[in-house]
Amino acid sequence: MIEQRIRDSFAKQTMMQTLGAHIAEVGEGTVTISAPILPGSRQQHGVAHAALSFAIGDSAAGYAALTLMPADSEVMTAEMKINLLAPGVGDLLRATGKVIKPGRRLIIVTAEVYAITGAEEKLIALLQGTMVPVSV
Amino acid sequence: MIEQRIRDSFAKQTMMQTLGAHIAEVGEGTVTISAPILPGSRQQHGVAHAALSFAIGDSAAGYAALTLMPADSEVMTAEMKINLLAPGVGDLLRATGKVIKPGRRLIIVTAEVYAITGAEEKLIALLQGTMVPVSV
Amino acid sequence: MIEQRIRDSFAKQTMMQTLGAHIAEVGEGTVTISAPILPGSRQQHGVAHAALSFAIGDSAAGYAALTLMPADSEVMTAEMKINLLAPGVGDLLRATGKVIKPGRRLIIVTAEVYAITGAEEKLIALLQGTMVPVSV
Amino acid sequence: MIEQRIRDSFAKQTMMQTLGAHIAEVGEGTVTISAPILPGSRQQHGVAHAALSFAIGDSAAGYAALTLMPADSEVMTAEMKINLLAPGVGDLLRATGKVIKPGRRLIIVTAEVYAITGAEEKLIALLQGTMVPVSV
Repeated sequence: MIEQRIRDSFAKQTMMQTLGAHIAEVGEGTVTISAPILPGSRQQHGVAHAALSFAIGDSAAGYAALTLMPADSEVMTAEMKINLLAPGVGDLLRATGKVIKPGRRLIIVTAEVYAITGAEEKLIALLQGTMVPVSV
Repeated sequence: MIEQRIRDSFAKQTMMQTLGAHIAEVGEGTVTISAPILPGSRQQHGVAHAALSFAIGDSAAGYAALTLMPADSEVMTAEMKINLLAPGVGDLLRATGKVIKPGRRLIIVTAEVYAITGAEEKLIALLQGTMVPVSV
Repeated sequence: MIEQRIRDSFAKQTMMQTLGAHIAEVGEGTVTISAPILPGSRQQHGVAHAALSFAIGDSAAGYAALTLMPADSEVMTAEMKINLLAPGVGDLLRATGKVIKPGRRLIIVTAEVYAITGAEEKLIALLQGTMVPVSV
Repeated sequence: MIEQRIRDSFAKQTMMQTLGAHIAEVGEGTVTISAPILPGSRQQHGVAHAALSFAIGDSAAGYAALTLMPADSEVMTAEMKINLLAPGVGDLLRATGKVIKPGRRLIIVTAEVYAITGAEEKLIALLQGTMVPVSV
């Protein structure tokens, strides 16, 4: 149910379609989003643009928060910090968001973004931020 | 000269083309990037995705740093924090990056992102981060 | 009136007394706090500890937010990011906090911390964060 | 050996003594620092000041980085972000810093700060930041 709600919301995020992202997994307080490194998602050296890691990390964290919210709520990012650890090179990127502390007014979240190359995965970005519930 | 170098680098960032972004202005230690809110750049409520503000804010800040670097250098984002102040609604978004403190190893930068609607402009995001020089 | 309220609250912050900090100025949406670099406020090389810059920057930002709040409210720091630009060396440190965007649920703030040596001042830290109103 | 080096450096940080902090544990890539909530470390409501959580979280993260550095290096905080999750109430605070990614130029770190009350521990702050090596 919550998974369907999240998939419906995700389907309306045209930015996710533009980036070729999809939801890989939904759990209680955690969501994983994957995206290829499309030809149109790169920076000047041909590797994934930081905004791609941000986009899927932020969305994974936001939907992780949403898994713990009442059915009539949505969340918005209040703030997000990203540390970029390594260039985004590989077959695809995979971001897992996680709720660290749920709350009525603020939800503290983190996300890890990995670059996947065959069987190997490498941590390339770490995010830490705050989601706020919004009524819809 | 530096402006040409920045425009050449920007032209190779396919993510910027995907988002419809272009360089509006280049000064010493400051760069402004504009982008429309394309149909493919939105979140689930139809307003600009946070990743759009991040993408142009981060790039404006990075190129602002590049204006102060030697000709054989480039910069990469080490970390960036974004506070989102208001929904991204308007005709277009405009991000101005600025160098706060140049350095040999770390360049501290900020960026402001405005949503422009006709003659009105509204601050919608504030970024603060660190660029690192990379040899190319 | 608001100034008195802020001075009363500040007087109860024993951490500020421990660090020798005092309020230098209160304006609408802005507060300045100064502190000496006490012998007990240093890191291993004898310069000001990062926590001193954080402490006065965070407090200046928090009280800046408080200047715009109703009389029965207080604020708490939800999150704060600090970039350290230069070592904290000088006669004293001075932090000026500023409200970027007031709000009913979130107040976005920044602060700049300067090291003052005679007539010279040097920017040593930049903070950007979020305050939340709390009822008391 | 590394533990002795860290304890020697820590002993020179007068801010740590002012706050009553001590090193509880040193491992490879991780350091734990504890501190009581001294009468002089509080905010206006009598709970631990955010700067106390920042001080021990930042120091734990910095010393965690130092455990992986060559003997003639030290580290400095380039930037640090803290999310405050709950008021600092309890018998003492305990911060554990951890290296997420070591590097020659940048070391990415995190820290968790817990408030300990008897046998109970509560996560009250989460930090994510960047340390830079400095030659001494």
